[in-house]
Amino acid sequence: MPASDFSTNEYNARIAKTRIAMTEQGIDTLIVADPSNMAWLTGYDGWSFYVPQAVILHAAGDPVWWGRTQDRPGAAQTTWLPADNLLDWPEEHVQHPDHHPYEALVTHLRDRGWTKSLGVEMDNYYYSAASHRVLSDALGADNIADATGLVNWQRAVKSDAELLMMRKAGRLSAHMHATLRAGFKLGRPKHELVAEVQAAGIAGLHDLPGDYAAIAPIAPSGREASASHITWNNRPLTANEATYFEISGCYHRYHCPISRTLFVGEPPADIRRAEEAVLSAIADTFAAAKPGTTCEDVAACVYESFARAGYVKGNRTGYPVGLSYPPDWGERTMSLRPGDTTPLKENMTFHLMPGLWTPDWGVAITESFVITPTGGQPLADIPREIHTIPSA
Amino acid sequence: MPASDFSTNEYNARIAKTRIAMTEQGIDTLIVADPSNMAWLTGYDGWSFYVPQAVILHAAGDPVWWGRTQDRPGAAQTTWLPADNLLDWPEEHVQHPDHHPYEALVTHLRDRGWTKSLGVEMDNYYYSAASHRVLSDALGADNIADATGLVNWQRAVKSDAELLMMRKAGRLSAHMHATLRAGFKLGRPKHELVAEVQAAGIAGLHDLPGDYAAIAPIAPSGREASASHITWNNRPLTANEATYFEISGCYHRYHCPISRTLFVGEPPADIRRAEEAVLSAIADTFAAAKPGTTCEDVAACVYESFARAGYVKGNRTGYPVGLSYPPDWGERTMSLRPGDTTPLKENMTFHLMPGLWTPDWGVAITESFVITPTGGQPLADIPREIHTIPSA
Repeated sequence: MPASDFSTNEYNARIAKTRIAMTEQGIDTLIVADPSNMAWLTGYDGWSFYVPQAVILHAAGDPVWWGRTQDRPGAAQTTWLPADNLLDWPEEHVQHPDHHPYEALVTHLRDRGWTKSLGVEMDNYYYSAASHRVLSDALGADNIADATGLVNWQRAVKSDAELLMMRKAGRLSAHMHATLRAGFKLGRPKHELVAEVQAAGIAGLHDLPGDYAAIAPIAPSGREASASHITWNNRPLTANEATYFEISGCYHRYHCPISRTLFVGEPPADIRRAEEAVLSAIADTFAAAKPGTTCEDVAACVYESFARAGYVKGNRTGYPVGLSYPPDWGERTMSLRPGDTTPLKENMTFHLMPGLWTPDWGVAITESFVITPTGGQPLADIPREIHTIPSA
Repeated sequence: MPASDFSTNEYNARIAKTRIAMTEQGIDTLIVADPSNMAWLTGYDGWSFYVPQAVILHAAGDPVWWGRTQDRPGAAQTTWLPADNLLDWPEEHVQHPDHHPYEALVTHLRDRGWTKSLGVEMDNYYYSAASHRVLSDALGADNIADATGLVNWQRAVKSDAELLMMRKAGRLSAHMHATLRAGFKLGRPKHELVAEVQAAGIAGLHDLPGDYAAIAPIAPSGREASASHITWNNRPLTANEATYFEISGCYHRYHCPISRTLFVGEPPADIRRAEEAVLSAIADTFAAAKPGTTCEDVAACVYESFARAGYVKGNRTGYPVGLSYPPDWGERTMSLRPGDTTPLKENMTFHLMPGLWTPDWGVAITESFVITPTGGQPLADIPREIHTIPSA
């Protein structure tokens, strides 16, 4: 995801709206440890998030990238930041028992006089309790506000350039699902099929190279599918079992996650009933998902469709998606569920997740979509029905 | 990584040694949020670590799995724990602005009377500053010790069953590197090659299915390779550029990371000199890496070999590997570097990382190896030399 994917104007607009949110929350200096937020603000890309790193956005001036010395060249190559704005922490402090990289961050913050009214992402994989302890001990816990999701919220409405990326990711998702349908055969060990689908997502299509997705393929079969986050194994595809694949194409870090269910043989009545409920849920949601409608209103389309079919769906039915790094392709802001009264805006993008998990099987048929004035519009074109093959 | 990969005796031994470390650190109840540690203690497997979850190990009794309601069936399927030991937090609290899953954990801990002398993994991706705040506010910060790495250290010496897994991962790594050498061709867009290599790792070999690795392929070329964590792009392989691939086979979550460098054309003298230094470094390290030698002593083999070639290596030169989940395949305990005086023990496993990054290129030739009485023994069999192909 080179910074060159987006214009200077776009980066300026991202920073401007982030600063408005900072001002509203009384934050002078925001420490952004979420790799997706770092990339969105600066273009930074690399698998370096397993050590402490951050983008620091002060009330004025360009953002600052801060990371391990060894990753500074990567920051120079991938971000649009001037060289003076790339700060590092000593290589020898990598995973060291007596030093913590955030000690170096404290020094940098003091050097710049950025020690008051800080904001941090308290609930993020890449801002540990230990990082917070170092920062609080040095600069005072009262001085540090919780800014979890502050940048994530700014990412909710996608720019035209971002939608283009997501539609490219959608073409990759469609290519992966076509590969999946073609390779789905009775008796085939599932890991072989996963290998093909993953390769399709990375090799991509002409002029459309793929990136790694933020979540590995979730691909459970039969009773495994009663659990919702089982990845895969080498068990052969078996007659009378439903398998679902939750996968995403990824283009320059933008995602378009889509699940489909496949079946060896003819699905029994209860699974067909679930399928019908899911398909109506998607159609109803797309019809309702216009700007101004709330998250809970569109979620109701899903719950009601399941209720009509005699099923109870006990979990949320969607979340925002876009630019992401592992371990999550969601944006962790709003959710499509009861109680979330956030109004939808044009060009927000969601993964609609009308899955159903019973003790004996799971069915997931999902869509990534964008909010438009005429309703939800899918970001990829993939047949929705359960794909069946003969069981003998 | 089903729990059935290991015997009950092995799980009992793992828990027993973890409890000894808990006692030494005055911890009655250990909250283990690192997915690798959770899997090592219970067999739990699933891509669910993007929401709060933990294994709770009290001074007595079986461990307890705690996670999202939707993931409880996955815990029932993958762990060896009795059903009563699978606790959950309410599905509706997933990524919710007004609730934090750790509130439910506090209730569970109170129910069991496990509210004193707690230990938590302060510096882990999957124990956020917000999680710690909830726990501290409820149970008192003074009551909670930092147990970062406590379980990781117990994992350092591998059992015979684990070494078998790692050798299988090593066979997958060798298969991936053979695929890489075969597919490395002038003008080939790199993402196509990455797709093939990834597919080889997952499709695996007869009776050897692959899993997803904890780190995506790092595969920079030319100047990109001066940065150490660039993944890949669609640029064609170009004459007179070094490319290195840092990749790992993964078998039931066990890893064997190995890097190799490839070159289109004849590498220039400075790269050949680096290669020679790396090859000597590996040979010297393997000769020295016997039980009783310290981490810094074996690291010296690498630094001295580079110094003899006129290069300065400015970063650590290895770390322990084994069972892992994203975003890191290292164990984050000891490091092969100056100042680390940890003595090596038989059946410890490391990724030896004698890479060299200059402003213009990078060379990485690395090995995963096990400590034996006769020295370091590689876990995979892959030609070490720079693989060259004609540039025209």
